[in-house]
Amino acid sequence: MLIMDGLGDRPYKLLRNKTPLEAARKPNLNKMAHNGETGLMYTLGPGIIPGSDTAHLSLFGYDPVEYYQGRGVYEALGAGIKLKKSDVAFRVNFATIKHNKIVDRRAGRDGCCLDDLAKQIDGMKIGDTRVIFKHTVEHRAVLVLRGKGLSKDVTDTDPHETGVPPKKPKAINKTNSARKTEKVLNSFISKANKLLDGSKENKKRIRRGLLPANTLLIRGAGQYNEIPSLKELFGISASAIAGGALYKGVAKAVGMDVLDVPGATGDKNTNLKNKAEYAINSKSDLVFLHVKATDSFSHDGDYKGKKQFIEKVDKEIISRVLNEFDLMFVSGDHSTFASIGEHTAAPVPILIYGDKKLVRPDLGMFGERRAALGQHRIIGLDVLPILLSKAGIVGKYGE
Amino acid sequence: MLIMDGLGDRPYKLLRNKTPLEAARKPNLNKMAHNGETGLMYTLGPGIIPGSDTAHLSLFGYDPVEYYQGRGVYEALGAGIKLKKSDVAFRVNFATIKHNKIVDRRAGRDGCCLDDLAKQIDGMKIGDTRVIFKHTVEHRAVLVLRGKGLSKDVTDTDPHETGVPPKKPKAINKTNSARKTEKVLNSFISKANKLLDGSKENKKRIRRGLLPANTLLIRGAGQYNEIPSLKELFGISASAIAGGALYKGVAKAVGMDVLDVPGATGDKNTNLKNKAEYAINSKSDLVFLHVKATDSFSHDGDYKGKKQFIEKVDKEIISRVLNEFDLMFVSGDHSTFASIGEHTAAPVPILIYGDKKLVRPDLGMFGERRAALGQHRIIGLDVLPILLSKAGIVGKYGE
Repeated sequence: MLIMDGLGDRPYKLLRNKTPLEAARKPNLNKMAHNGETGLMYTLGPGIIPGSDTAHLSLFGYDPVEYYQGRGVYEALGAGIKLKKSDVAFRVNFATIKHNKIVDRRAGRDGCCLDDLAKQIDGMKIGDTRVIFKHTVEHRAVLVLRGKGLSKDVTDTDPHETGVPPKKPKAINKTNSARKTEKVLNSFISKANKLLDGSKENKKRIRRGLLPANTLLIRGAGQYNEIPSLKELFGISASAIAGGALYKGVAKAVGMDVLDVPGATGDKNTNLKNKAEYAINSKSDLVFLHVKATDSFSHDGDYKGKKQFIEKVDKEIISRVLNEFDLMFVSGDHSTFASIGEHTAAPVPILIYGDKKLVRPDLGMFGERRAALGQHRIIGLDVLPILLSKAGIVGKYGE
Repeated sequence: MLIMDGLGDRPYKLLRNKTPLEAARKPNLNKMAHNGETGLMYTLGPGIIPGSDTAHLSLFGYDPVEYYQGRGVYEALGAGIKLKKSDVAFRVNFATIKHNKIVDRRAGRDGCCLDDLAKQIDGMKIGDTRVIFKHTVEHRAVLVLRGKGLSKDVTDTDPHETGVPPKKPKAINKTNSARKTEKVLNSFISKANKLLDGSKENKKRIRRGLLPANTLLIRGAGQYNEIPSLKELFGISASAIAGGALYKGVAKAVGMDVLDVPGATGDKNTNLKNKAEYAINSKSDLVFLHVKATDSFSHDGDYKGKKQFIEKVDKEIISRVLNEFDLMFVSGDHSTFASIGEHTAAPVPILIYGDKKLVRPDLGMFGERRAALGQHRIIGLDVLPILLSKAGIVGKYGE
């Protein structure tokens, strides 16, 4: 299962009115499409704009309505933090602020010196609450509040736009735990901002021509409850190859074995070749291979970079794994339109390739608009059943 | 409603890279497609491999999750057995065994002498349990155990492969009734095997160059509960034309009037012309016409035979009924890939034809891959509502 994050897009004039996927030179994906099944997938459902976390839960066969626990939980699991039930976990962006207005929500997407800054924040005490704080990839970090009487019922501080101040975290209800969490979070933010502002790490960033990482934007509060594993639900073993903490975290939550792949950074310079080798060498029934940069290029409005990255995936992953698996599924977790730099609800093309006896090739190609000629119109929750039925792991219903 | 069993398939080189349906010469189906609505149907849902029983329940508007009662029930109803609630019914294959290993799960698909053999088995007593046993079509038979304290909670003896011994039936739980049924079934099997082995009917089969029918493979235990009829649920009368006992049985279970059509055998030599005449003469609101051989050819890997049989259906049924009905629905109940001889979860093409004022013709044709261009993407449970709305039997939801 190869997922190119945010794969779906719209056409652009400078790509000769093609989408990045359509425009990309991708001989190996074309070969798969020529001999494979195609179609379109609404990962969550028509008109539902997927988050990356809910989208991946669906692709793994877990209905997010039942299983979703908040983004912070997956980021924390993916960062290697062992969560307790009473912890509250948040996704954090290092961001750039000036005169209390956000200049860049991602501090230029540059991770320089953020490990060192995170270590200074990690271990802070806010009253009887302990702060666990880890930098992950690029501008991303994880915050876990550990203590008594905390709750996930607090609002985000990330306004998801620039030119405005960060929001104040607010209790969503009047329970003591929500109110306490609001208070703890407010104190934490002032303390962290002070630390960031005066830090030698930010001076270093500025010297290097980078944006300072002088505030934290906090979102996606969640509390962790164990859920049944893929082994328990579907009887399959699974491993995961991903750079980003979120994807590792969702994979961990469903009981995948998360592989530690050298150079798999989740950014635009990630080592795709290593990812392919680790996928081939895995002994699991299912291998989930995630690449993130397609989405990042879209968020930054760079549809050309997205196209080129798809070409790189074709060359460095697809060409290598093409004949190594019994069954392959290639898609995105959702669309991210470079035109607006945001996730959209547009359906994403899917591609299923494998043993000729089991696959009915379509007339389509692997592109958003040609995939509409394919046989499948599915939602994300259909993916695993389709793969399991083809793999002979589940049999007939009835006779 | 014309259902060609196991219609969906994949392309084959020797059919010039077409599927049997695509390759078939079918001027009458083409005419319907040209003026009709097309699309693709996952009978039960994406990735769910349909059995023929669950698939037909769906096509008749009955969600199998709610209504499915086990294959044995439908086979028995279809064989004309009046079931009591306490009966346990099984689907049986006459099969060929040598040195306790299965040589052919279907005794060469030949029904020769099996009526006579069945009559000798019918009426056996196993303790206080009475055996009802009927041969139906080809290698198929039905077993009903009638007595006190029996249960459907026993496993199949059919291993669904050759070269291995039949399985022993086992109680699924520790209830007295499951244990008793296991015991009764074991005694029945040894008694029947002895009878078959020494029979003059099998000597006759061998003399004729046929495989001996020297064991029984038993599966699909079920107990019958009446369910609401099509009349009660949808307000329509319905009749059924089918050769196979299973299809007659599902039709009976939903309250259809099962017509006795001379020469409708459910095999490859069935009398399609008679089926067409009986369909035309029926006065019911809905006529269900089933042909089985498309599926049988696929199970035997004979995609050319399948193509030719589709041509025969076009010539002997479609040409005759084309102008006789207000509304026609043509499809399969599921895909059976000749490449593997098994049901698959691949979607099947559908075709809706009728009064021009009510039908919006598509650009597609009636074939697996062209149907992807059609307007419909549905599941089996959608079929009856679509037909009822077009027929004016159900009206608007809201105003």
